[in-house]
Amino acid sequence: MIELWELGGKNDCRYSTFAWRTRLALLHKGLAFEVHPVAVTDKGAIRFSGQDLVPIIRDGDRIVSDSWKIACFLEQAYPERPALFGSELGQNLTYFFNMWADRELLPLLVPPLMLDVLGCVGEAEAAHHRTQMETIFKRKLEDLYAERAKTLEQFRKRLAPVRRILSDQTFIGGKTPAYADHILFGVLQWARVVSLEQVLDDGDVIGRWFERVLDLYDGAGRREPARRERAMERSA
Amino acid sequence: MIELWELGGKNDCRYSTFAWRTRLALLHKGLAFEVHPVAVTDKGAIRFSGQDLVPIIRDGDRIVSDSWKIACFLEQAYPERPALFGSELGQNLTYFFNMWADRELLPLLVPPLMLDVLGCVGEAEAAHHRTQMETIFKRKLEDLYAERAKTLEQFRKRLAPVRRILSDQTFIGGKTPAYADHILFGVLQWARVVSLEQVLDDGDVIGRWFERVLDLYDGAGRREPARRERAMERSA
Repeated sequence: MIELWELGGKNDCRYSTFAWRTRLALLHKGLAFEVHPVAVTDKGAIRFSGQDLVPIIRDGDRIVSDSWKIACFLEQAYPERPALFGSELGQNLTYFFNMWADRELLPLLVPPLMLDVLGCVGEAEAAHHRTQMETIFKRKLEDLYAERAKTLEQFRKRLAPVRRILSDQTFIGGKTPAYADHILFGVLQWARVVSLEQVLDDGDVIGRWFERVLDLYDGAGRREPARRERAMERSA
Repeated sequence: MIELWELGGKNDCRYSTFAWRTRLALLHKGLAFEVHPVAVTDKGAIRFSGQDLVPIIRDGDRIVSDSWKIACFLEQAYPERPALFGSELGQNLTYFFNMWADRELLPLLVPPLMLDVLGCVGEAEAAHHRTQMETIFKRKLEDLYAERAKTLEQFRKRLAPVRRILSDQTFIGGKTPAYADHILFGVLQWARVVSLEQVLDDGDVIGRWFERVLDLYDGAGRREPARRERAMERSA
């Protein structure tokens, strides 16, 4: 059985945007897998992989890290299973879409909501995340959070091309989902898991698409509690 | 035979970035077509299409304008010919790529080189282009031209995701070209036809890919003289 290492936080929450891409890719291929949650500070747990980032998968004697490389590995190793890319063009343009999500979307979504992540993890991990993010962005997380309304507005605007696709398509993949759907899902699932903020406007077609993807693969995405649901549990 | 209306300038030069996408799509499909050059000021010539932009194609009794709509029409009307998109995913992600080229690439390439276009067209057309562009950018074309080194540097940086794809792929489509190649070709062919500026650095893999696309379809792209070639003819 394939093994997957991914970030895990408090109350077993799974908040890695990259690991969600990999999870959905494994489910899309119909492959059974076992998950090992790893704290962001526990580099020892993943030393076997020869690098220090999750997600990582082990499939027999193959160890692959980096969500994009994992998707390419799965497509090549399991060509008879449902396609993630479907063609060389599909793979190249999905790579382009993956880079766009990482370079254009995450920098507008992660900084304003990163303060929320600190409440989803233990103290040592929170300190690690804070140091890392404040070094990258050269700002206090509290200041980035204070500007969240403006930053999230830019985030929604930047989604315009995807909004155009999803206004007359069920999935980015067309009638059925593809890895491009998993990429964007990973972005929005991160926000759903870590934050109480509503990042999309009511009635946005992307929100309706997100609900569809939450239901895919027997509701694998939806089974992960939203931060909102965890908050309600605590106050009930 | 299919008819194509596209922008034509002085000395029969063909400089529309959008029409180059359509031309290559027609050639890719192996369809015979006849071209009608239209001056940008001659709205009368294309009134039959019910709108005022080129490219336009007429195929039997079907009239289609807008390069993206034309590509979709050709893919649907000629499914047995070489594919432009290959799949629904391919079509959706190519649409995404098309929007990226229009929104992210052209705004860094057209303003600095627009002054060059004025030398490729007649006086009335030059005045039309100047008014249109200076209204859109709220700047004098001369000022935009003066900043071209900086703007073109940003243009090259923004091509990074494509550079990554083309560093180990022959075409964006993979082993064979696809409409995504035609889109990016149209962007760079515009610069080649209108300007003496070298927009890509020597040794850029995108430059080598551009040379390959110039050679496709019996060198259709290369037969259109570069501004540099026209300049040499005049001075010889």
